[in-house]
Amino acid sequence: MASVIHIKDRRTRLRETLVQLVQDLMASEGLGAVQARRLAQLAGCSVGAIYNVFPDLNDLILTANVDTLDRLLAQQRTALERLPPHATRTAQLVALALATVNFAHDFEPAWRALYDHRGGAQKPYPDWYAALHVRPVTMIERIILAEEPNAAAGHETSRLARGLWSALLGIVVDGMDTRKDRQKRDEIEAQASLLVTIAAQGLEAILEMRRKG
Amino acid sequence: MASVIHIKDRRTRLRETLVQLVQDLMASEGLGAVQARRLAQLAGCSVGAIYNVFPDLNDLILTANVDTLDRLLAQQRTALERLPPHATRTAQLVALALATVNFAHDFEPAWRALYDHRGGAQKPYPDWYAALHVRPVTMIERIILAEEPNAAAGHETSRLARGLWSALLGIVVDGMDTRKDRQKRDEIEAQASLLVTIAAQGLEAILEMRRKG
Repeated sequence: MASVIHIKDRRTRLRETLVQLVQDLMASEGLGAVQARRLAQLAGCSVGAIYNVFPDLNDLILTANVDTLDRLLAQQRTALERLPPHATRTAQLVALALATVNFAHDFEPAWRALYDHRGGAQKPYPDWYAALHVRPVTMIERIILAEEPNAAAGHETSRLARGLWSALLGIVVDGMDTRKDRQKRDEIEAQASLLVTIAAQGLEAILEMRRKG
Repeated sequence: MASVIHIKDRRTRLRETLVQLVQDLMASEGLGAVQARRLAQLAGCSVGAIYNVFPDLNDLILTANVDTLDRLLAQQRTALERLPPHATRTAQLVALALATVNFAHDFEPAWRALYDHRGGAQKPYPDWYAALHVRPVTMIERIILAEEPNAAAGHETSRLARGLWSALLGIVVDGMDTRKDRQKRDEIEAQASLLVTIAAQGLEAILEMRRKG
């Protein structure tokens, strides 16, 4: 019995070590640096040992990404909590958008790993990961629905929340990829706020029409 | 003199052959298949000959991408021309968005090459390419400005146009990457239309406020 626990401990420790190493590599050198041989060397284990505790490298990277996602969500939540009480929907969406832009710039390699890594373009995320990845969308959905108990919840709201989040990702990724360094951050911030503001205005207009009609 | 022309012809022909081969490889197997050795084999030339007519592989890929971009723009233009005269701004933006979604799905490997290829994440596009890449943004800008001769042209309009285009890219890329095949296209179409519609509504609301006050 004791030896089973001992084996379990070792497995857990190796998992934790590997996740930490992947995070460090992603943060310093980016996703390209995450290779089995290098990880084994850094962890002082064999390459085979990695595959004893993770089904594949993809699964290991996704596990490390979860931590990045947690930190992103914490930063978004903090930004929302800093707003004055009863801040408008627009102000909330802008705060969330700016927190995202800042996170992407402050932790660019980890952020890129979060959204660049698809385990090969043909393969969709595994379900457990997709469920986590959708949390920023849920946060946007809640902002849209707040104080609108009668708003058309369900399909259309989640579609809009999902669309807004993808749109924000597009602005950040496209901006980081195509712009030169100095203009980058300010322009991306401005674009993200503008789009979110316009979308929030559009939403108000539509809700107002529904209230009237 | 005749031999100079002859050499120029050969260079031009090799350039054209290589661009065509890159397009075929991107369309059938994606960007990953575009490798110098493979291209040389297919073109029946040496690897060195490639670098006599293109400064590097990156430049060759970008040149091939220009053709994809031309076809995308043609499809967007056709979609706009098919609208009834005096179609609303929303209808125009939705038509452009749907044309983009359809193009991305019909020519997925070439589309991915267009937006996945950054010549390494650190390197921004060369200027000649950035100038071409911005053409869909210009098209959106024209739609926003149409029949609004007094609208705040310039900085804010191009920022919104740029933001909308990046947003659309985000919706398409994120949707293609994370969703399973069957739901993909319909859901991406619906998200893109919804976001563009909401943004257009927001824009109307803002312009209306400006007109009034």
